[in-house]
Formats: sequence, structure tokens, C-alpha cells
Amino acid sequence: MPKSPKSGTDSRPDPQQRILQAAVRLFAQKGFAAVGVREIATQAGVNISMISYYFDGKAGILKSLIQDFFRDYLTVFDIPDSASKTPDALAREVVGNVVGYIRNNLELASVVYNELPLDMPEIASLKTENVLRMIERAGWLIQRLGLDPEDRFRIGIIGPSLFSVIMMHFRIRHIQREVFGFSLDDAFYEKFTEAVTTLLMHGVLGLAAEAKPRKGNAHV
Amino acid sequence: MPKSPKSGTDSRPDPQQRILQAAVRLFAQKGFAAVGVREIATQAGVNISMISYYFDGKAGILKSLIQDFFRDYLTVFDIPDSASKTPDALAREVVGNVVGYIRNNLELASVVYNELPLDMPEIASLKTENVLRMIERAGWLIQRLGLDPEDRFRIGIIGPSLFSVIMMHFRIRHIQREVFGFSLDDAFYEKFTEAVTTLLMHGVLGLAAEAKPRKGNAHV
Repeated sequence: MPKSPKSGTDSRPDPQQRILQAAVRLFAQKGFAAVGVREIATQAGVNISMISYYFDGKAGILKSLIQDFFRDYLTVFDIPDSASKTPDALAREVVGNVVGYIRNNLELASVVYNELPLDMPEIASLKTENVLRMIERAGWLIQRLGLDPEDRFRIGIIGPSLFSVIMMHFRIRHIQREVFGFSLDDAFYEKFTEAVTTLLMHGVLGLAAEAKPRKGNAHV
Repeated sequence: MPKSPKSGTDSRPDPQQRILQAAVRLFAQKGFAAVGVREIATQAGVNISMISYYFDGKAGILKSLIQDFFRDYLTVFDIPDSASKTPDALAREVVGNVVGYIRNNLELASVVYNELPLDMPEIASLKTENVLRMIERAGWLIQRLGLDPEDRFRIGIIGPSLFSVIMMHFRIRHIQREVFGFSLDDAFYEKFTEAVTTLLMHGVLGLAAEAKPRKGNAHV
């Protein structure tokens, strides 16, 4: 997330940060295509020329937000003492990190997720770079899960699945609250993290087995 | 998808269908919020008053598209001779149906998926109804997978995961083609269906085991 400036007597963030904060809120509410630079400038309390100056337009703001997102998202793979942990424990921590990160940065995560299909040339290369960086950062985990880091087919399916399964919950949580009674509090997110970890590591059959340990189907 | 009218000497679809076809294309390209009714009317070649007449405005068009989507999507759970098939074979067919449906109806699926987070009251109830209908329709499959149809917590996580894992591919396929070399032809979608089925049924560990059958880790 955009950070507040570290010095200065004015407690307001600097104009560049105010633009990012206004843009992420507006893009999250209305979608990138529906927001104009004038609207962002008004919300940020800056002159519209500042947007050209700092970001070279609306696409430049989106690029900056995508960079912010990936810089922080990459850290979900930083697990302390990883060598001493089981693959399931590692997966549990990574899923917990992703859930925590999205919970705390929902607008930014939504904007980046919503704009993933956007095939703008200047943004496409940014996404490609960041996906490659993520594979590199998660390389140790990929190996610990028993996968070959060169197995691009399987990694190319698993990586996005981690993010999409968790993100899907945040996109439809209002429906899940109503239909499934999801409470969306800390206790729920603990249970959710456990269940998503089992689903991703052991699949539907693993989750089904976990649901009935009494019948002797207890999962590992 | 909207169907062409079944009779009449004019080969063009009727105005109602033309409105839906223009809207699904525009919503898919620009997002619901960024499209105006005037633009839809122009693209559909109808007078703007027709949109009020048939759909009571833009939200009414979206409602109609959501209904179309769910009506067709529900059929992915209709598997012939299901009683004689294994859970893995059933899952393989359902995943294949979802992949096939999205491939053939990408604009409609994208519009509905993109607008899932939209919390408009009149549309929320429509989504809730359709999710309940889907659980009912998939009840037999839920049982065959060893889950309790009353286990709303797990079903509420698994159901959306099926759709989101597959949809994620279609959202980022331009990135996957570049980074992972995905070819996006029929042969690719066969392999993709197999891999997604394994991931959903047996998790990452199942997919990893399948990748190295020679080492004696062959998965069921």
C-alpha cells in the first residue's frame, strides 16, 4: 500500500500518495475504465496537471499500483524457518499470508485482480515481469511441494489458482455471508485459511475426508 | 448465450436479442460501469427507448445476462450415466463442461464474473437465488464426492473455487501464453482439463505426484 511520507510538518500525505490513494479507491469502486483523471484529481485534492507530472496519465497510476501490489504480494512467500516445516505447514502459512494481505489491502488487490485481463501493451509487460519474479521468489516452495520449477505447465496452473481461490471469496463474500452464513470475522478467517490450505494441498477429497474424521477417513 | 429467434423472414435477431448481444460485448470490453445505454442502443441498432421498454435500463440488461449465464451454467452438472462413474471421472466431466462452456461463452462468463462483487440490491438477490439453485442441482455430485450437502462451509468454498480456478485461466491467458507457453488450442484445453481436475480433486500434492509417475509416486 502507498505509505505516508516519513518526514515533514504537514501530516497529509504528499500529492503523489494522495493521487494513488484516491485512484485505488475510485478504481475499486467503479473500475479503471469508468474513472477519469479529473475525478481522481478532485478526490486527491490536487491539480489535474499533477497526474501528468507524476504518472503521465491514468495508465501510469495503474502501473504504479500494480508495482505496489506485486512488491508486497511477493513477501507472502517469505516464511521464516522454512527448512524445519512440513509442506502442509508451509502451505498453511502462505495461504494465511495471502488471506491477511488481501484482507488488509482489499481495494488494491481488487483493482489489480480486476485489471488482470486488461491487455494494454505497457501494462502487459509489467505483469509478465512480476509473474516471473514471483516464480523465482516461490522457487524454493515449488520444490518443497514436490514440483519441478521447470514444470511451467503445472506451475502456471497452480500459482494463479492460489490467488484466485482466495480472491474469489473476497469478491463474493456478500453472497457467501447470505447463502452460507460466513461470518467474516477473525475466527472465520482462521477456519477459512485451514480449509483453503487443505483444498489446495489435498483437493476436494482431502477436504471431504477432513470433514468426517470419526469414520476413520482422517486425512494426513 | 442469447439465442437467435426461431422464426420470421428477417434473418437479424429481434431487437431484444440485439440489445443483449451488443451489451454483453460492450460490458466485456469496458466493464458494466463504463458503458452507457446510448452506446448499447447505437451498437444494437435500436432506438434507446427500446432498452427501457425491454429491460427497464442498464441494470435490467445485466439481470437478464446473469439469468442467461446461470441457466446454461447449471447444465455443467448434468452428467449422463453418472451412477456408473468414479468421483474422478465425474469431476473430469464437470471440469470439461465448465472449460467448454467458458470457451464458447467467454464474453458472457466474463461479464457475470466481473460483476460478481457488484452489490446492487436487485442483482444481489438474483445471484443468491442462482447460487442456491446451483447447490441443489449439484447436490448429487456433492454427495458422490463424499461431502455432506448440509456442510455449507466446505461447499461454500469448493463451489466458487471450481469456477474461479478455471475462470482465472481465461482472465490471464495472454500472460500465461507469454510466460508459460500455453498454446490455447484444443490439445492444450484437454491437458488443462486433466490438470485442473487433478488439482481440484487431489490438490497440489496430487498434481506433483502425477508429474513423476516413474519415481513410484503415481497418483490414483
